[in-house]
Amino acid sequence: MKVRVLVRPKEGILDPQGEAVRGALPALGFGGVKTVHIGRLIEMEVESADEVDAMCRRLLSNPTIEEYEWEVVS
Amino acid sequence: MKVRVLVRPKEGILDPQGEAVRGALPALGFGGVKTVHIGRLIEMEVESADEVDAMCRRLLSNPTIEEYEWEVVS
Repeated sequence: MKVRVLVRPKEGILDPQGEAVRGALPALGFGGVKTVHIGRLIEMEVESADEVDAMCRRLLSNPTIEEYEWEVVS
Repeated sequence: MKVRVLVRPKEGILDPQGEAVRGALPALGFGGVKTVHIGRLIEMEVESADEVDAMCRRLLSNPTIEEYEWEVVS
């Protein structure tokens, strides 16, 4: 089965990538963007979803500064 | 409105981050993972979704090596 994991900086944690993108948008002519947050997309083909949560905690995210969510997509 | 953009390496493009994660999983005791692909998650608060596709093409992704999809999430 295919699993999709989304990892993002926790609320209040510095997000320099997102800030850089937000700052670049007006110069490219894109207005009206209030916030930009950048995280990671992880897509895995796994035999079972049983261990996905443990993988997220132990390898795919840093729980101190990041939050994650995951779902089976197919 | 809140928009979520997913950016991932195109099929056949080298994905060293994904390969590194896939290689690290067995040593942590996680078996049964066939493939891992890593991309970017971008979440933006925008006034209108009209320009999101252009932002994806011009700044948020590299269309030569990456594909993207986006959706309005709220």
